[in-house]
Amino acid sequence: MALHFGEGSAPALGITAALAGSIGIVLSLLKADSTKVGYREGFVIATLGYLTLAIFGALPFIISGFLSPVDAIFESMSGFTTTGASTLTDVEALPRGILFWRSFTQWLGGMGFIVLVLALIPSLEIAGMSLFRAEVPGPTKNKVLPRITQTARELYKVYVIITAAEVVALKMAGLSWYDSFIHTFTCVSTAGFSNQNASIGAYNNVAVELIVVFFMVLGGINFALHYHWLHGNFTPLWKDTETKIYLGVLGTATILIVINLIQVLGYSPEQALRYAVFNVTSVTTTTGYSTTNYDAWPDFCRVLLFFLMFFGGCTGSTAGSIKIARIIILFKYAIRQMSKLFHPQAVIPVRLGGNVVHKDALANVQAFFYTFISIFAVVTIIMTALGLDFITAMSAAAACITNVGPGLALVGPMANYAAVPDLGKLVLSFCMLVGRLELFTVLLLFTPRFWK
Amino acid sequence: MALHFGEGSAPALGITAALAGSIGIVLSLLKADSTKVGYREGFVIATLGYLTLAIFGALPFIISGFLSPVDAIFESMSGFTTTGASTLTDVEALPRGILFWRSFTQWLGGMGFIVLVLALIPSLEIAGMSLFRAEVPGPTKNKVLPRITQTARELYKVYVIITAAEVVALKMAGLSWYDSFIHTFTCVSTAGFSNQNASIGAYNNVAVELIVVFFMVLGGINFALHYHWLHGNFTPLWKDTETKIYLGVLGTATILIVINLIQVLGYSPEQALRYAVFNVTSVTTTTGYSTTNYDAWPDFCRVLLFFLMFFGGCTGSTAGSIKIARIIILFKYAIRQMSKLFHPQAVIPVRLGGNVVHKDALANVQAFFYTFISIFAVVTIIMTALGLDFITAMSAAAACITNVGPGLALVGPMANYAAVPDLGKLVLSFCMLVGRLELFTVLLLFTPRFWK
Repeated sequence: MALHFGEGSAPALGITAALAGSIGIVLSLLKADSTKVGYREGFVIATLGYLTLAIFGALPFIISGFLSPVDAIFESMSGFTTTGASTLTDVEALPRGILFWRSFTQWLGGMGFIVLVLALIPSLEIAGMSLFRAEVPGPTKNKVLPRITQTARELYKVYVIITAAEVVALKMAGLSWYDSFIHTFTCVSTAGFSNQNASIGAYNNVAVELIVVFFMVLGGINFALHYHWLHGNFTPLWKDTETKIYLGVLGTATILIVINLIQVLGYSPEQALRYAVFNVTSVTTTTGYSTTNYDAWPDFCRVLLFFLMFFGGCTGSTAGSIKIARIIILFKYAIRQMSKLFHPQAVIPVRLGGNVVHKDALANVQAFFYTFISIFAVVTIIMTALGLDFITAMSAAAACITNVGPGLALVGPMANYAAVPDLGKLVLSFCMLVGRLELFTVLLLFTPRFWK
Repeated sequence: MALHFGEGSAPALGITAALAGSIGIVLSLLKADSTKVGYREGFVIATLGYLTLAIFGALPFIISGFLSPVDAIFESMSGFTTTGASTLTDVEALPRGILFWRSFTQWLGGMGFIVLVLALIPSLEIAGMSLFRAEVPGPTKNKVLPRITQTARELYKVYVIITAAEVVALKMAGLSWYDSFIHTFTCVSTAGFSNQNASIGAYNNVAVELIVVFFMVLGGINFALHYHWLHGNFTPLWKDTETKIYLGVLGTATILIVINLIQVLGYSPEQALRYAVFNVTSVTTTTGYSTTNYDAWPDFCRVLLFFLMFFGGCTGSTAGSIKIARIIILFKYAIRQMSKLFHPQAVIPVRLGGNVVHKDALANVQAFFYTFISIFAVVTIIMTALGLDFITAMSAAAACITNVGPGLALVGPMANYAAVPDLGKLVLSFCMLVGRLELFTVLLLFTPRFWK
């Protein structure tokens, strides 16, 4: 792309490729004492792998001189973790080769969560995978290694098919091939980078917005379900509890915001609906595109969007955050605990889509939730210590750990993270990584027991 | 008091007493079909009991004409739940009889949590009690009915002794007997009503502030520990993990805020320490007094105080909110879950102060935490729907469910809840009740299974 457009970004990308390639070749020649990848090795590999990705992914930005090293790490981490937070104040000033790379990191990262982890590190017993397996019958259920790599390959195919469909759809709606690719990469991965300063709003094109909404929604659905309906079996999709609740959340939030925009800002119903559908979907699926500055909406909308960040899409999707299945399980578990107060001896299983959720998965979901909230709180406090205001700090912490990208106030949808001090950018980069790897993969490296 | 001061508030209080008394006598004459109080009856009694308290407690404010019915219910609920949120814009304009009543509701409520529930509804198996029993050896461990009423009586004695000590201390520090009583009632109960518009800050008296800090800290410690040291046994207090962490949280937060106040606002170390110690203790113990408008502090302090609201004091204390023991258990449980990811077969118990926390108590703590956070989120959204701004809505929801009282912005320490619409006041009143009764006691009345 860089060579094709001839804007001078080819050397930066070429040097990066050469460097990464040669280090890769040297490393692959080294003989390991043991090739056994156990649970612990899996966690270390995943965490160090993402850190390595972020560092190499940052090189083109640094070499081309568009970003400082810290900003470049932030941008690269934001890419591979499919967050979409940016420190670029003028995206449009960058050469198209670099921007293509920037979007492509998100496409790679989008697969990362479901497939890269499943395919390369099958020994990772993270909660998301347990949920994934517990919830969806089909290609992801089998734990045996050959089947998991096969699964990964099948999901890759699904991802490529959906990607191709969106590229064609966006081209037909009037975008250039280049812009279609740029946005498809960051849409199916629910990631959010754009080559436009005004994000998708720059096109002011209803067809484009509807296509993007459709593919953001698809990106937020379990890819195992996509696999089934692409093979002609629509039943698992129609019957999936998590998908129903996910669409219910999107629908309810959209309706509430439409009503608020009409009542408070006096928008026409069509205008309110157009804005609400797009931006609610973008935030809830943790994509992070925008078609308007929703930070200027009434505080009811801002607070609702803030809390929607924590929902995220479905398990097994490209979306980040807590995810719908966990929220459903927590809700059902709370009801169960209340029932146990007056039926102490009753054994009341928690079910999701007809299947009983195993107690280990339950325990993991519990711990996941409050660890998530705790990290959010700590990062918010750190951000205010660095001088950011209440809402900026809170929404930046939330937007990074949930992998949404844009927050509110100073880091709102029409702003960016350039104003955050360097230390803050590094903390937020770490936060994106922790969120993307579903917390424990990274955090347990900090427990003493892990190294015993 | 009303008769003594002769400010015309005696009729309002007299009518209330007569009304409550006669309804009580009539009800006590009714014969019940069954006198069995099971688990379910216990929950209904607790919830309806508090609602009844709030309604009768509101009558003096309504009859004397100082508050509208909704404001009076809010004030009364804020009293009995030891929240301390007020709708009064000028407290000092009220007659002393009414103000005495207002503070006294908090003293009654302060006992409510530990003793009233234990003494009157021993069949309530709420998590707080399980924790209380699991954690502290001694008077609260026995479940047999006669012992629990005996326990309640012992804790009452402790409460009265601590109350008497503070009254004398405040009198010696220069307050009138009246002001000493007014503030002692709302201090040992970590509740927060004052008869001064500027709260404790009105006295500008270091000795008073230190006394109040000391008794707020005492109020936030498990009363079973007070029972022991008052009987000469200091060991349980010194060895108590929860108390240590509680004091650690207070100390750490104070130091952080001192540093911030010195650096950002240029306060002298003495001034910063004086303000930080008092207001951090007030917020963390869920009291809600203030000696300055901490809402005008840098956002680092505001955010820290906001999150401190969710800590609260120790289990078995008069403090509200999530409470330290739960936070410790959640933290240890998260570490355990991480260890289980690479030691899937290991059985790793969660301990608190040497004792293994039972799995039912663990499950309850988990459910408690995210139910707490969910109610906070929903109430925040409702408050913004009623037109409050982001920080006001968020902090009002937090301050009411945690029973702290004052929040930030429009409901900050030098402001009050008068500006909240009536519907919002009712929602917040409900929120105080839910927080005070540790969520499930109230919430399970809304589950269909409960009524089957």
